[in-house]
This record gives sequence, structure tokens and C-alpha cells, in this order.
Amino acid sequence: MLAVVMAVPSFIAYSQEAIFPGTKEIVSPEVKSDGSVLLRLKADDAKKVYVVGNITRFYKPEKEDSEASGPVMIPMENHDGIWSVRIDSLVPDVYTYKFLVDGVETGDPLNSYVIRDVSTVSNMVFVPGAESESYTTRKVPHGTLARTWYPSKFKNCDRRMSVYLPAGYETSEESYPVLYLLHGMGGDETAWCDLGRATQILDNLIAEGKAKPMIVVMPNGNMAMDAAPGESTGGFAQPNFYLPNTMDGAYEKHFPEIVSYVDKTFRTKTDRDSRAVAGLSMGGFHSLYLSANYPELFSQVGLFSAAINSGRDALFPEIYSDRTQKIHRLKDAGLKLYWIGIGKEDFLYGDNEKFRAELDAEQIPYTYVETDGGHEWTNWRRYLTDFLPLLFR
Amino acid sequence: MLAVVMAVPSFIAYSQEAIFPGTKEIVSPEVKSDGSVLLRLKADDAKKVYVVGNITRFYKPEKEDSEASGPVMIPMENHDGIWSVRIDSLVPDVYTYKFLVDGVETGDPLNSYVIRDVSTVSNMVFVPGAESESYTTRKVPHGTLARTWYPSKFKNCDRRMSVYLPAGYETSEESYPVLYLLHGMGGDETAWCDLGRATQILDNLIAEGKAKPMIVVMPNGNMAMDAAPGESTGGFAQPNFYLPNTMDGAYEKHFPEIVSYVDKTFRTKTDRDSRAVAGLSMGGFHSLYLSANYPELFSQVGLFSAAINSGRDALFPEIYSDRTQKIHRLKDAGLKLYWIGIGKEDFLYGDNEKFRAELDAEQIPYTYVETDGGHEWTNWRRYLTDFLPLLFR
Repeated sequence: MLAVVMAVPSFIAYSQEAIFPGTKEIVSPEVKSDGSVLLRLKADDAKKVYVVGNITRFYKPEKEDSEASGPVMIPMENHDGIWSVRIDSLVPDVYTYKFLVDGVETGDPLNSYVIRDVSTVSNMVFVPGAESESYTTRKVPHGTLARTWYPSKFKNCDRRMSVYLPAGYETSEESYPVLYLLHGMGGDETAWCDLGRATQILDNLIAEGKAKPMIVVMPNGNMAMDAAPGESTGGFAQPNFYLPNTMDGAYEKHFPEIVSYVDKTFRTKTDRDSRAVAGLSMGGFHSLYLSANYPELFSQVGLFSAAINSGRDALFPEIYSDRTQKIHRLKDAGLKLYWIGIGKEDFLYGDNEKFRAELDAEQIPYTYVETDGGHEWTNWRRYLTDFLPLLFR
Repeated sequence: MLAVVMAVPSFIAYSQEAIFPGTKEIVSPEVKSDGSVLLRLKADDAKKVYVVGNITRFYKPEKEDSEASGPVMIPMENHDGIWSVRIDSLVPDVYTYKFLVDGVETGDPLNSYVIRDVSTVSNMVFVPGAESESYTTRKVPHGTLARTWYPSKFKNCDRRMSVYLPAGYETSEESYPVLYLLHGMGGDETAWCDLGRATQILDNLIAEGKAKPMIVVMPNGNMAMDAAPGESTGGFAQPNFYLPNTMDGAYEKHFPEIVSYVDKTFRTKTDRDSRAVAGLSMGGFHSLYLSANYPELFSQVGLFSAAINSGRDALFPEIYSDRTQKIHRLKDAGLKLYWIGIGKEDFLYGDNEKFRAELDAEQIPYTYVETDGGHEWTNWRRYLTDFLPLLFR
């Protein structure tokens, strides 16, 4: 077998484009069995290197810096040009990070895992454990993730959506209930899978019998886009956080086109008890108003850190006014689940509190989950994991 | 409408995780109408900043550096801490780049477009024009890209593949021919779409009537993996270029499982004239031996910068010996297309030359395309664009 071993290296060196000469004598990130993460960077000439990203969330600096503002930065230590830091006490989760090398944002050249959140690309490191178990790809039956395009008469173009089909869809002849799962502002039809690990969560919960097999439709909620950045006919403009036609009623008016396409194209159950809508932030706003305006479509609703009060009712009354009456109609049509989740530190906490008071006053029942943390994917992954088992019961 | 405009900014600032405080007063990359690309980076304290990546391919340094080895580096100019460079004479294409800031590889923090090639993540910039026209998402009917898993008895696990279904697949009742499109060493089931822009090329050529509507199956050719890095049950190990069970016959032995799954799951035409296999580098090697060993399966073959002579025949004779006789059997069964493409500077040029001489001597007909350039995605995208129109005629 020696010949194989010997024959390989020269082939390796050239067999696909070897773009950069990475320095691979050090490892980064290194995830230790105790859940701590070591990060390393070779930067001989650097004067100061920090780690930034959500991996800093549990970091307490030794002395408070009263001047500190902006993101938390963890200083790294220099040993002969290799900068390193050990970050511990991390709750098992998906973490993002970057280095700041003398003020320049730098990805970790030794880490091939990156995720984009709106217009920021960060490195990703996964800390395994009980809390993140449902985010891993396990040896269970896997669903199919399809990126497909549906025709919109409303926008006079085709628009892209992600569709999760549960394991066995291709060979079974069953029909399935449908969850419409909506992203936040600046997100797109890829966000729930790339950042939210929705396919893994679905595969795992369904395999364990905790969630019902279901189809999950993740459309693009920005009416100014036809698809995610890079996949759009708009070319390669840098992603924008705020786009025209956001939260102006257009998405909600257009939404029945999506439901109609999905019911025509996939083997769906089409009764309202087999349909749910949920979303994060702006997607929670959309879920609130989609369910309120189309009580005939949905009986189950999830509001994850939802943008509740946006002053839109006076501007776009057709969709956003008379919220309470509309939710009453939804209740009268049969409201199987109205789920609200929010973090204690979320800047939308107060608006959600007011909304709950409104529901209480109207005796509209809902399920409420309050977590630590703020407006962040850590919570949205957790909310999805908690929400899915409640659907289609 | 003022109220909307005023209400938005505070919401923008927090509505999804704003991970890093990007400095957005400068723009990078900027693609000019003449096809030149301006790159900019703010790095106040840097002593020397270069651009690396395939965007340097046409760069001629003003004075030859006889000491130069390794990748070509384009120096950037510093004006008050903003480093910049204008790169011109770029053939319209997909380009990759990174910065080297005082020796540290740095992604462009202003550019959200990144692609991973094996274990290297680079920024991407798209230069539009005639040569890259087929790589863009245009206003044409779009196919569906499905990431799905098939059962392998050979490996006793499920394995992931990408499947392109042509526009209209979901609503038509037609059956379609199938191209099996294989990646190179270090690649995976995502490579042809992420780096090769296969979905865009297919959408465009099919819409123009230049290629027949077809299903394109992109499996994972590394028998040691069940899925691409990050999607695998193997967790988040850094991608490896060379893996066990590579080019040892296992993939070829296993391949009929893939064909059988595809024919069972999708509406395929199952005659050999409706099946083609093509691949780049190691995928070309696989295509050569899959077609040679299974003449009953394929009548059309594409070898893109193929790894031809690897000394594998003595080691794994069951699959790799008696190549000439096997190709004769393929010819006898009916060889509709045997397509070979290679760049003049490819390190595999010589091996391909010898292989062509072998085919000539045996009077086995083939189509040969020789291009500039080497072992690189620029050529593989071009080969795919040239190859697809020849299929299923």
C-alpha cells in the first residue's frame, strides 16, 4: 500500500485550486471536551488582537472599562507571533467570532466555517452539548431542503423560497401539514437554515417523535428582493438591512400566492388546522398580521421576539389596523396555538409585554415563554425547538 | 410618510444580531463598467497590504522578482489608512480574493460574498460580461436545487447529494434525462453549485433552448464523508483535501446505488442514451471509470481536467485495470459523446495528451477542447457551459 501513500501528495497539491498558502501548523478553533474554545491566529507584526462576535457573550473583563462602548472584545495573548485565547463557560450553542487585528476585522484563516448574518460574514464554531444537541446532523432520517422558485403575479416575477420536505416525502404518498417559517429584517429565504439550523432541528425532533412530520416553507419576506443576495436577478449588490416595501402590507397581501403555490406543488394538508405560521422579529410581525388577516388559513401562530408595535396601522390600515378585532376573528375560527417567546433583554420586550396585556384584556389565550438573552439566534433556535413539538396536535 | 422614515432607524439598528461594527464609509469591491475592480480596506496601522486570490491572474508586476515563489500578490496603496488598488483587464468571470495585511490573511469586511474551496474561504467578486453571462441569475424560469439524502447499503448510512430539477419539473409530468456531475478531490456535493454556478448555467442554457431540460445529480464523491463539511454527521471538523477511500474503487462500486435511487425517486428517463456522467479532476477520473465499468448505464461522458493516470490500476484492478478494453465495450454499446477538456497550463495536460494518444490508437472517437489556463474553476465553468448543449441529442 506504500505506493498509494507515496503517489498522493503531488496530486493533492494541485488537484483543485489551492488559492492561498494557509499556515496550518496551528489549529483554530479548538473545541475542548469541557466546552471551552481555543482560538489562535498567527500575526507576527500585530500590536493588539481581540476576539469579537457572540462568542464574547459570557466574557467578564477583569476590570470594568467605564469608557467601553460598542461590542465586547476579548484580548488575545501573544507568544512569538501566535495570538491565542481560551474562552470558557460557553453554553453549548453555535457561536460566531472574528478577530480584530490592529483594528482590522479578520476572519480566522484556519476555520472554513462561516455564516453570513445580513451583511456580516463571521466564523462559526459549534460547542456540542445538551443545549445544542438538536442543532447537529445526527444519524437519523434526513429531510430534503429544496430551493425553489414560485411565480408571483403580485410582483410580476418569480421569487425564491426554501422548502423542507420531511424524510420519506419522496417515497411516501402521504400529505403533510405545513409550517410557514419567516425570517427577520435583513434576512432572506436562507436565514432559518444557515443561521437557525432549522433542517437539523426538524430532522432530529421528527426522528425522536417529538414533532410531527411536516413541510416547512421559508419564503423571502423582502418584497424588494426576488431571492437571497447572490441568488437574485439583482446580481451581487451588498445585502441591505432595510429595503423598500418592508412592513408596508405588500408581503401580507401577496402571501396567499405562496400558500396557493405550496398547496399546488407539494403534498400538503390544506385545512387550517394543518397550517401554522411563525417567524422571528419582522417575521413575527408578519406572522401576527398574516394570521390576523387570514383566519381561514392558519390556526397556529408563533411570534419569536416579534416586532409588535411599529406604528404601521395608521399608514397601512388595510393590513395593520383593527388588530384586536382581527385576532378575535382568528380566535372564533379556532385558535389552536398562539405562542409568544421573548428574551428578557430583548429591546422588543416592552412591546411584547404591552401586546400580552392587550391579549389578556381581550381574553385571547396564548402560550408565553420568557428566556434569558436578547434579540439573537440563540433564542430563535431555542424557540423553534420548543415550538415545533406543539404543532399539528 | 415621514413617520415611517423616522421610525425605522432605531429598529434597523437592533432587529437582527448586529455582530460587528463595520466601517461602511468606503466601498469594496467596486466593479466599474469597464470591468475593472476596485478593492479597498481600512487598515490604519498596517505596513503592507496585498491582494491575493485568482483575481491576480492577469497581473504583471512592474519589475520581475526573481525571488518570487508562491501566490501572486498585488500591492495596495495607502492613503490615510485606506488601502486600495484597481485591478483591470479582467475577463468577465467569478473572481476570488483576500487581503494579506502584514502577513495575515484577511477577508474583505465590506464584502458579504464568500465561497469556500476545500478549506479556504475567500471573498468573491463577479465581473459581468459576455464570458460570465451564463453564470448570472437571469429573469428566466428557474430550476429547483434539492439537497437530499439517499440510503447506501454499501456504506451502511445515508449520504447527501444535490439534485437540480429543471424549471417546470414540479408541475409537468414529463420524464427527464440525467447528468451525473462529479466534483474534484477535496470538493463535495455543494462544489458544482457554489463554485461552479451550475444552477445558473443550467437555468440559462435551458431557457435559451441551448441545452435540453435535464436532471443533474451532484453526489458526494468522498466515500469517507456522508455529506459536505458542516452538513455531515461527522460534525464540524475542518475540511480535508485527501480523505481515506479516495480513488480506491469504492465510489465506483457504490455508484449504482445512486443511479438506482435517482431513478426510483425522480421522474427520469432510464435508457443509457438519457444518461451522462461528467466531472472535474478526480470527478473526471470517476467519470472515466464509471463509464468504462458500466457501459450499460452511460452513453455520454465528460472529462474536465481529468486525473487520468493515477497508478490505480495495479492497486485496485477490479475497477481500474483493462481500461482500453472497457472503453471499447463502451464504444460497442454506443458512445454518443466522449468529451475531453483541458487547459494548456494544467499539470494534468501531459496525462491527458497520453490518454488521447491511447484513444487515437484504438480509434475511439472523442471531442477535444483545449483552453488557456490551468486546473481551475474558470475552466470548469466554461467546460460545463460548452458540454451541456451537446447532451441528449
